Amino acid sequence: MRDMLGREELITVEKALELILKHIPFKTPAEINLTIGDSYGMIISRDIFSPEDLPVFDRSTVDGFAVNSADTFGATESFPSYLSIKDEILMGEEPEFELKKGEAAKIATGGMLPEGADAVVMLEHTQQVDERMIEVVKPVAPGENVIKAGEDAKKDECILKRGRRLRPQDIGVLAGLGITDIWVYEKPRVSIISSGDEIVPADKPIRPGQVRDINSYNLSGLILNAGGIPVRRGIFSDKYEIIRDVVEESLRDSDMVVITGGSSVGTKDMTARVINDMGKPGVLFHGVSLKPGKPMIGGAVGNVPVFGLPGHPVAITVCFELFIEPVLKRLTGAVNTAIPVTRGTVKARISRNISSSSGREEHVSVAIEERGGELWAVPILGKSGLITTLIKADGMVVIPLRKLGIEAGEVVEVRLF
Amino acid sequence: MRDMLGREELITVEKALELILKHIPFKTPAEINLTIGDSYGMIISRDIFSPEDLPVFDRSTVDGFAVNSADTFGATESFPSYLSIKDEILMGEEPEFELKKGEAAKIATGGMLPEGADAVVMLEHTQQVDERMIEVVKPVAPGENVIKAGEDAKKDECILKRGRRLRPQDIGVLAGLGITDIWVYEKPRVSIISSGDEIVPADKPIRPGQVRDINSYNLSGLILNAGGIPVRRGIFSDKYEIIRDVVEESLRDSDMVVITGGSSVGTKDMTARVINDMGKPGVLFHGVSLKPGKPMIGGAVGNVPVFGLPGHPVAITVCFELFIEPVLKRLTGAVNTAIPVTRGTVKARISRNISSSSGREEHVSVAIEERGGELWAVPILGKSGLITTLIKADGMVVIPLRKLGIEAGEVVEVRLF
Repeated sequence: MRDMLGREELITVEKALELILKHIPFKTPAEINLTIGDSYGMIISRDIFSPEDLPVFDRSTVDGFAVNSADTFGATESFPSYLSIKDEILMGEEPEFELKKGEAAKIATGGMLPEGADAVVMLEHTQQVDERMIEVVKPVAPGENVIKAGEDAKKDECILKRGRRLRPQDIGVLAGLGITDIWVYEKPRVSIISSGDEIVPADKPIRPGQVRDINSYNLSGLILNAGGIPVRRGIFSDKYEIIRDVVEESLRDSDMVVITGGSSVGTKDMTARVINDMGKPGVLFHGVSLKPGKPMIGGAVGNVPVFGLPGHPVAITVCFELFIEPVLKRLTGAVNTAIPVTRGTVKARISRNISSSSGREEHVSVAIEERGGELWAVPILGKSGLITTLIKADGMVVIPLRKLGIEAGEVVEVRLF
Repeated sequence: MRDMLGREELITVEKALELILKHIPFKTPAEINLTIGDSYGMIISRDIFSPEDLPVFDRSTVDGFAVNSADTFGATESFPSYLSIKDEILMGEEPEFELKKGEAAKIATGGMLPEGADAVVMLEHTQQVDERMIEVVKPVAPGENVIKAGEDAKKDECILKRGRRLRPQDIGVLAGLGITDIWVYEKPRVSIISSGDEIVPADKPIRPGQVRDINSYNLSGLILNAGGIPVRRGIFSDKYEIIRDVVEESLRDSDMVVITGGSSVGTKDMTARVINDMGKPGVLFHGVSLKPGKPMIGGAVGNVPVFGLPGHPVAITVCFELFIEPVLKRLTGAVNTAIPVTRGTVKARISRNISSSSGREEHVSVAIEERGGELWAVPILGKSGLITTLIKADGMVVIPLRKLGIEAGEVVEVRLF
């Protein structure tokens, strides 16, 4: 079999992705300053350092009595230590007294230790003798039940590194340190160009022979979910000059360009030619051993990746996950961690045999159904142009390159949408 | 061991959740009308029906020639059928001719079949004889490579059911049907009340004894991710009248109320009392066999769930996932599907022994590290008041109720943040 550049074999998904990632140098995205309340999910663009010691004072981690630990050594139920109650430490207040030998001060979780105290005895290890006196029935070690000033973070310590995606708890910690605005990377802009003489906007009536623009809406949502900003450029006729002009315009203010439709072999196919004519390196692969998604084009103009996607809506979803999402992730400025990229998956039994050609990776849409307490993956078959199959599918099952199919009853992993 | 309502045993996580879900009746959320471009991730509030047949015409699913299938019966490489080329069908155009016996018309994927045609022969199963004539080398059955009008969706067919969360491809299909605005449920509003005399806002300097408000920022992000709208009410003193007033005010315009801090046993603990005094059913559980998160309070005032969370930031994350998220999901109007709620997980080997008390469910924060090509889950130990542990953790490992611990080297499932 020849691919569309005339090579003998279609390129594999793995090699195609490698090729495109090799040509997209890590270009540092632009920065913006945001308040932390607007920064959930953003990628930080500068290392963040602690502006102060955290905590700024010695804090209790339990409800109990602040003590000098030496006063409790050897204390047991039978031979408790007796300590006189000096005072109660109020939350949010700095204690204005010093704890002397033989004294204890009532303290709540989070309270500040007074001078002279180095540990806290938990309430349940004490007995109130009278208003002025407690028994301690268990000893505490120095520092026990206390977080020392600076123990959590030291002033000027790097607490979050550039390239980190901010999770809710990270924003919480920033608030805890008094950091209320930060530098983050701008989200990458992805231009979506819909091509095809038969395509009309979703809000216009259609005549026989025409269809409405589905793919730019599907792609916009996928781009949003992956951390990009979709820019729907509109619908354009399959003419070389028209597509070239809108690609040229898009390249000026986009971090990525995606063209849908117009990438099957035929007289109207000029996506590849436009990409090559716009600049180096141009088209990097055209045609992948993948179903659906075989006619896909991947390339770049300078630093900007440009993709040509087949018009079939299911192929859009598959090509997005395999190619566009990993490239987009690189453009966000996020630094890779040891954690593999995961999405929700579920194990289920496949409800019927599925055959696949060896030599191509096949992605099969499935619906998840519960039958007799077990989950089943029911392949959604149907002609490749059907679009309501998109609604019925809950996820995808992958049949790898060298596997010939799946037998009914086999347990498969479904990658959920 | 007694729980905080004086019962002999702490309630399990499972029973506590059951109790609270039983008291939160499914109340239909308010609806709003949105354009589809603003509806990604929203829950639809009315069944959606197809306004027309989809497609509205018979479409080709391949590049090739529209034919009358009877003309190709018996065609082989050795004995091809000869058909005369009538015309070429342009994309987006309605063919203005009728195909007669012995005729074929060139057609691209998505093109409209002319009258008289009932199938399409793929380009690769034809040979061009001359400008006016093709050979067909393989027969096609009636309807082959064609999607009939209405085959994808019939007019008035229900295509999306109420309670469905809209994914990118669902919005694509709506666009394809010409549906550009829809009714969706408003997102539930969750009031967050931070209580504690020692808490100051993130943008204010702190004095010794004070700490900044971490939890309302952490909770806001968790609520956003779960499909709710966080409303940060502010920071309030641990006084009965003050907390009662802000809870009362919050109940008026919120679908859920979450109070952080003030739920450990102590003189300043009045969250439970406020919940009971606001209305029935009041507090449903107070104290759960869970670590961290044991002092948690769950209750409801009328239809509105009210939670009291311990002040410890790691406990906030655990209690949110186990209790608040499932209740919030019910409030969104989303209808449960057969698919279990999943979040990203990863298998890893635990790097050290972890012990746990039988009789409570324990959630251990871990960092994921790659060591020698394998993933390891490294428990993040440290005193319970430390907050930078939140930054270091990549996820949680659960030690179930009846398990006493995990041995170093054991493979565990890490629920990623």
